[in-house]
Amino acid sequence: MNRVTIWTEARQDRTEEAVRAVYPQGMGDALAQAVTSPGVTVRLATLDMPEHGLTQAVLDATDVLLWWGHVAHEEVADEVVRRVQARVLDGMGLICLHSAHASKIFHALMGTRTLNLRWREDDELCRLWVMDPAHPIAAGLPDHVDIPQEETYGEYFEIPAPDDLVFVSWYPGGEVFRSGCCWCRGLGRVFFFQPGHETCPVYWQPEIQRILQNAVAWAAPSVTGRPFSGHCRPLQG
Amino acid sequence: MNRVTIWTEARQDRTEEAVRAVYPQGMGDALAQAVTSPGVTVRLATLDMPEHGLTQAVLDATDVLLWWGHVAHEEVADEVVRRVQARVLDGMGLICLHSAHASKIFHALMGTRTLNLRWREDDELCRLWVMDPAHPIAAGLPDHVDIPQEETYGEYFEIPAPDDLVFVSWYPGGEVFRSGCCWCRGLGRVFFFQPGHETCPVYWQPEIQRILQNAVAWAAPSVTGRPFSGHCRPLQG
Amino acid sequence: MNRVTIWTEARQDRTEEAVRAVYPQGMGDALAQAVTSPGVTVRLATLDMPEHGLTQAVLDATDVLLWWGHVAHEEVADEVVRRVQARVLDGMGLICLHSAHASKIFHALMGTRTLNLRWREDDELCRLWVMDPAHPIAAGLPDHVDIPQEETYGEYFEIPAPDDLVFVSWYPGGEVFRSGCCWCRGLGRVFFFQPGHETCPVYWQPEIQRILQNAVAWAAPSVTGRPFSGHCRPLQG
Amino acid sequence: MNRVTIWTEARQDRTEEAVRAVYPQGMGDALAQAVTSPGVTVRLATLDMPEHGLTQAVLDATDVLLWWGHVAHEEVADEVVRRVQARVLDGMGLICLHSAHASKIFHALMGTRTLNLRWREDDELCRLWVMDPAHPIAAGLPDHVDIPQEETYGEYFEIPAPDDLVFVSWYPGGEVFRSGCCWCRGLGRVFFFQPGHETCPVYWQPEIQRILQNAVAWAAPSVTGRPFSGHCRPLQG
Repeated sequence: MNRVTIWTEARQDRTEEAVRAVYPQGMGDALAQAVTSPGVTVRLATLDMPEHGLTQAVLDATDVLLWWGHVAHEEVADEVVRRVQARVLDGMGLICLHSAHASKIFHALMGTRTLNLRWREDDELCRLWVMDPAHPIAAGLPDHVDIPQEETYGEYFEIPAPDDLVFVSWYPGGEVFRSGCCWCRGLGRVFFFQPGHETCPVYWQPEIQRILQNAVAWAAPSVTGRPFSGHCRPLQG
Repeated sequence: MNRVTIWTEARQDRTEEAVRAVYPQGMGDALAQAVTSPGVTVRLATLDMPEHGLTQAVLDATDVLLWWGHVAHEEVADEVVRRVQARVLDGMGLICLHSAHASKIFHALMGTRTLNLRWREDDELCRLWVMDPAHPIAAGLPDHVDIPQEETYGEYFEIPAPDDLVFVSWYPGGEVFRSGCCWCRGLGRVFFFQPGHETCPVYWQPEIQRILQNAVAWAAPSVTGRPFSGHCRPLQG
Repeated sequence: MNRVTIWTEARQDRTEEAVRAVYPQGMGDALAQAVTSPGVTVRLATLDMPEHGLTQAVLDATDVLLWWGHVAHEEVADEVVRRVQARVLDGMGLICLHSAHASKIFHALMGTRTLNLRWREDDELCRLWVMDPAHPIAAGLPDHVDIPQEETYGEYFEIPAPDDLVFVSWYPGGEVFRSGCCWCRGLGRVFFFQPGHETCPVYWQPEIQRILQNAVAWAAPSVTGRPFSGHCRPLQG
Repeated sequence: MNRVTIWTEARQDRTEEAVRAVYPQGMGDALAQAVTSPGVTVRLATLDMPEHGLTQAVLDATDVLLWWGHVAHEEVADEVVRRVQARVLDGMGLICLHSAHASKIFHALMGTRTLNLRWREDDELCRLWVMDPAHPIAAGLPDHVDIPQEETYGEYFEIPAPDDLVFVSWYPGGEVFRSGCCWCRGLGRVFFFQPGHETCPVYWQPEIQRILQNAVAWAAPSVTGRPFSGHCRPLQG
């Protein structure tokens, strides 16, 4: 049983008509529908909850955390970011979605200025090419998936070289982008997934929902316990 | 011409007799002697200087920064850490030595709790095995290098998987340790090198000096300029 | 249900007393006992069977192939090697054990002279350190596993840098060795695991059996089908 | 001083008018002009020479070998392939160009069916995006390079995950392709570079020539000697 917590900043989907039109119950709700499946339980958390809904107790009861933020990254408390980071390093999976590339938590785990990339809001086609067809996150997909309308992201994207490069996106305007990237950090697994512009119905698309479900399964922790750290005695003799 | 800045916290080598006995002019001085060579200029910086000796002007004039710290990691100002991190991401090389595994700057660039490892101070043999004999940092070395006395570090070491694993150390007491690790972060290169316990004459050893010289050459930036980042227009059509 | 085929050359365990003493029913039998578990079916194949027991039909019905060979690598037919290689690239998992580092199939998949390493037969302690505690192959293990008696292998080992480095071994005589290494090749997963000298009872050790079971689960294919390859038409427009 | 040998099959550029029009002196000549620079000496070799011009003496005197082949891969003798492979593993750099993705030598070093990819001959734009702006092979380049006319290659490309991914190509017809990939194999470095369709004047383009020069500098060996391999004595005690 994988326990998923979906964190969204829940701002634009309450205040902007163009976003409400796509996600009338909020983006958190759509993401919950996307990942709900047998063997998965879902909890929602948002920026405006106490401690952003990410208390230690919630994190301890979370196997995989999804993160969608855009206009309010700076409002996320550093203390909560440190708590999430520590929980990832202890084994919780983290899925950073779309503009979460610029979130504090993604930056903290990557060590680079993940804010840095090229972007356009032209609602154009985004074609996700599968670069690693045997990767669990690509299970059940054809060799590419077309998203009819999406924001365009382009390289250079300032990230550490991914441990696994699952998707590269193609856009008609001429860009490419590493749109599905995996990293291991401590005992935790991190997946960045580019699609999810707030005014495009991306999270309602079945292939995207399949990717999110796959990502939850991939990111879920496989270990319990924590390796020894500290002063030790010699092992031999 | 590579411009090297050597940063040391310069505490134990002023206050502890056992360290002064090994490094009478300080560890910064020994490291300077280690890396000085034709084509390299060296500057020293220490914790107690204004801005820890790492002003923007100094960093802008630095190609490779060496970092040795141990007892005073917490005294390093966050503002300076952010400045060093940004400069690495813009291309400056960084060489983190020994207990700098627990420094703020290494933690910030790695995203993991690099403090976490196993350790003993038993002044035992440390045997550096070359895992990547074609790596520039291993140039001119035999297949292993013995350091007669060194602090023992052991796995598990909480670091992202290195881009290049150059050395793994063996200790008679039974541990192994990834003791020479490379990462690229943004435009910069980072090398962590385990040897350098303050009471052992490690930086006077010729093979270790060779490794440090190789590491400076490897970490020196090869690019100028910075990739575009921000809002863009479509490229095609 | 994972269908496992265990291939052994089945020579020394029939002809040498010291090996028969450890593996009276043969090494294939011991490996079968090691990996048998709910959800796993096991078939045995040996060098002396027609087509070495690895017909296309057998391979097509195999999810994960274990390979143990030592004195008869050269007797393995190139045609069978090509068949196994193709099947790995189409998704079958492959686990190369101990002296299978020098097998034709491992060499063919790696592209390097995997024969090249340092070795001694001194029946000394082999301590497997877990380098990646969150890796599925390390699930359920403590931070290191001691094998009381094993052949010693040492670096430099001529392999491509592993995609995942799961274990590094320590030996009292002074060597280290990358003893648990993962690679993806095409749609298939390859695991090399050092332990398994024929005169040491390694495959009877419960922790080693656990590792082999984990490795079977990790190497089992997650995809069906094969990506498109060949002449194509433009996708757009 | 880097000693470069340029190997071309030299068939289409002698027999096909469309190729002769672009490369009247042959593709080997154009590649020689592309990489010639201070500190580089160039030798040409072709399929029809004795031993394909790649005797042991020639290889021993070669630091970096460029390989362009297309219609005659099968005519390359297996013995020569093994010789080249061994020389790469001992430190010689290898640059495989364009349809050399399907060459025996690239296949042997990669272990996968590098033949497998998607392709079209539509003479369309190929836009090379720099994915690793600090990589030596990208030195001096803008963030992308446009080749006005090139054959189209598309994913999925059956290669091991590159150690460094330097370029990803974008094509107007909708594909992406990992067009500049680096691997280390043994002591040698291998670079695959997609551009170079025989009827397009790609190797006359200054940015492409710069990339080839950079690649030669990157692939040139940094070591002499060969790590120990074989039976050994314990090191300690």
